[in-house]
Amino acid sequence: MNLNNVVERAEAGWNKSLERLFELLRIPSISTDPAYSGACDDAAHWLVKELQAIGFDASSRKTPGRPMVVAHYTPKDATAKTPHALFYGHYDVQPVDPLDLWHTQPFEPVLKKGADGVERIYGRGTADDKGQLMTFVEAARAWIDATGSLPIKATFLIEGEEESGSPSLIPFLKENKDELSCDIAMICDSGMWDAKTPAITTRLRGLVHEEVQIEGPSIDLHSGMYGGPATNPIRALSQLVAALHDGNGKVTIPGFYDGVSKVSPAIKKQWASLKFSEKKFLGSVGLKSAAGEKGFTALEQIWARPTAEVNGMWGGYTGAGTKTVIPSKAHAKFTFRLVGKQNPQKILKAFQAFAKKHLMKDAKISFSGKGGGSPATEIAENNPYILKSAAALKAEWGRETMLVGSGGSIPIVRSFKDILGMDSVLVGFGLDDDAIHSPNEKYNLTSFQRGIKSWVRIIGALAG
Amino acid sequence: MNLNNVVERAEAGWNKSLERLFELLRIPSISTDPAYSGACDDAAHWLVKELQAIGFDASSRKTPGRPMVVAHYTPKDATAKTPHALFYGHYDVQPVDPLDLWHTQPFEPVLKKGADGVERIYGRGTADDKGQLMTFVEAARAWIDATGSLPIKATFLIEGEEESGSPSLIPFLKENKDELSCDIAMICDSGMWDAKTPAITTRLRGLVHEEVQIEGPSIDLHSGMYGGPATNPIRALSQLVAALHDGNGKVTIPGFYDGVSKVSPAIKKQWASLKFSEKKFLGSVGLKSAAGEKGFTALEQIWARPTAEVNGMWGGYTGAGTKTVIPSKAHAKFTFRLVGKQNPQKILKAFQAFAKKHLMKDAKISFSGKGGGSPATEIAENNPYILKSAAALKAEWGRETMLVGSGGSIPIVRSFKDILGMDSVLVGFGLDDDAIHSPNEKYNLTSFQRGIKSWVRIIGALAG
Repeated sequence: MNLNNVVERAEAGWNKSLERLFELLRIPSISTDPAYSGACDDAAHWLVKELQAIGFDASSRKTPGRPMVVAHYTPKDATAKTPHALFYGHYDVQPVDPLDLWHTQPFEPVLKKGADGVERIYGRGTADDKGQLMTFVEAARAWIDATGSLPIKATFLIEGEEESGSPSLIPFLKENKDELSCDIAMICDSGMWDAKTPAITTRLRGLVHEEVQIEGPSIDLHSGMYGGPATNPIRALSQLVAALHDGNGKVTIPGFYDGVSKVSPAIKKQWASLKFSEKKFLGSVGLKSAAGEKGFTALEQIWARPTAEVNGMWGGYTGAGTKTVIPSKAHAKFTFRLVGKQNPQKILKAFQAFAKKHLMKDAKISFSGKGGGSPATEIAENNPYILKSAAALKAEWGRETMLVGSGGSIPIVRSFKDILGMDSVLVGFGLDDDAIHSPNEKYNLTSFQRGIKSWVRIIGALAG
Repeated sequence: MNLNNVVERAEAGWNKSLERLFELLRIPSISTDPAYSGACDDAAHWLVKELQAIGFDASSRKTPGRPMVVAHYTPKDATAKTPHALFYGHYDVQPVDPLDLWHTQPFEPVLKKGADGVERIYGRGTADDKGQLMTFVEAARAWIDATGSLPIKATFLIEGEEESGSPSLIPFLKENKDELSCDIAMICDSGMWDAKTPAITTRLRGLVHEEVQIEGPSIDLHSGMYGGPATNPIRALSQLVAALHDGNGKVTIPGFYDGVSKVSPAIKKQWASLKFSEKKFLGSVGLKSAAGEKGFTALEQIWARPTAEVNGMWGGYTGAGTKTVIPSKAHAKFTFRLVGKQNPQKILKAFQAFAKKHLMKDAKISFSGKGGGSPATEIAENNPYILKSAAALKAEWGRETMLVGSGGSIPIVRSFKDILGMDSVLVGFGLDDDAIHSPNEKYNLTSFQRGIKSWVRIIGALAG
């Protein structure tokens, strides 16, 4: 069978695949620091050269920031019905400080076997995201080497600004909409459930934020002279924050849960099978019990439930000692994590109305009014690309693929949907202990090797 | 009649009294700035010389800070029954910056008649407290000039560190307890109700403070990764602050009102007669309605009711923009203004117990535990010295003397009570628009002149 040949070819090429990964890892492509902009050019150029060598029509595209690598592959026998997938990754990496905490040089990658017998590749970018993006590059090579062609149409989009906010991405997608629009996007920048269990991230929470200022008196007052009759804005703001949740951890803003859908019994059962340890998850950050909505597990609270969170609050005297002041103003920053079809603008309006309604008499409230925000992304669990990818991953890893959520948002998924009109399948082989963004970043050798084989199988499945 | 002679003598000496006040005002005795420590010595020396000239046994006493002026006068015919009053004032003044806002030089006092026909003395220390302390010095002079003696035993205590926290005062009172203990203390550092209505301050609220830290997770968390199950310490702290008051503005801490007494109908009636404008009082600081306990006027809330106030609160991200963080810690500073017999230590303990009881699950609370605090001071309205002083003031001003409160605390009153075992009568002639601590500080000429005559009458009343 074709697929087995390709898998074998991938295995046969592991050593060379690793050598190529090391070459890319040696390029210090830190996007946020202009001192490394030449290195970013080098990384983009290196990728173009490699992709051209495999047979891609590859080029490095200028942007106001770091270059974008775009590469296309069309099989000779392709028809209008041949599936077309976009593969996304990023070649830029995080800065490396504090350097003194690294056990090896961040840009001199090494393969080391741990006391536990596990082989790990150490270096900046190993897991985020050079190691990951090279899994699909090497899978494509194996397909072409073994069969003379990819079985699908493929477009690779590898950006160089992911670690610095992707300022050029949205304009680039808009300018190159026709060239980049495919049937589906495959994003390799996420993780497995654990070292043995593959996962596809199908739920990403949305986010909307608001900053509030409450004013009481027009000037700071002496709490002796005015304490009693003067409205204290910190008290008013505290009342607002306290009113946001009921005794069961539910958000009390009217209409807040509009558009929040229930998790299907099948997915609920799958999540329960994960044997996720709330105790361990919370215990590692000094907590004991899930503080969110009653009746939901911690995983459900993070993956499938919205939140109203205060991220910062300040007012009055915050220095050493005491100051008997009734401050004029108090401030707070709020974020709302959204799920399902919750509408960011409606949530903002509902919050503002709620805040005004719960405002202490004689206090004035104002909102930063920056608006913005993005809705949640939920890819249907019966989406055919999800089903095919999940089956391919199961074939490689020998375990059911978990359809998991992520409490945070990955903006690229929204951009692909909104600008290019395509859903994304988030597949990746990172692990929780990869130390991305930290010293001693690593990528397990099995993540790299079986990641390549996983993509070999997914590409085969997409073609089928 | 003796008293009339003394009053006439005071009036006859007004010009010279004013000249002497100007001499004292010209000495830049700023206590907080070491550059002016020589000026403080000069001011103390000037007072010693003046008091000696009148016939007092006066001396300047060294302290670790600025010198203390102590002067005694014992009438030749004094017996054990002759009343002995301590008169307290302070010769030090506030700094003068911002200098560019002064219309005249702060240490070159001038007498100016305003467009309203009112004559005012401008300069630093005119109202706080050199002008005020010189009213009793000049009254003593008038008595001795007119009758050859004071009719009571008098001790003057004039300190030089009142504007810099009085660090030497308590040790000095303790070391000189026998010398300074009198029947009553007369403190001239307060104000009239208005330019025509004399007042004695009989109520000073006490104060106790506490700083709270609430810890949720052991480290700052990403609100995407943890938002939902993670306990947010700002939310926990807000719940505590919000729980401190009920819908009627009453403090909800169990036992908080133990020891709070009702204002007598007579005093209530007197306060009502003041025609105090809440609208004007609150309107001047941008507020509209009294936010304190329902059923009490703003004056009652400030003078006769305790408070629980948050003076500062902070936690999480407070910079520009947004940061999706669930902070590890949140902090707040609280003060409690106390009245009647409320016990500061009991209040602290009750607050701590309340805070622990209202703490969100999985949050940890800790208290600064600095303790301290001072109870309220309430001098009985039928205290004989109050009655005599009130009658004397009424005789001078032709209006009922108001027995008023002060929302703040004046630590010297507690020290006199606790260390020297004597009550204080707070009489002063300052007005709300005196701009103490500000540029263009002033003291009305009538405050000075009729202040002297008021003390002439009070001294007479104390002797009677």
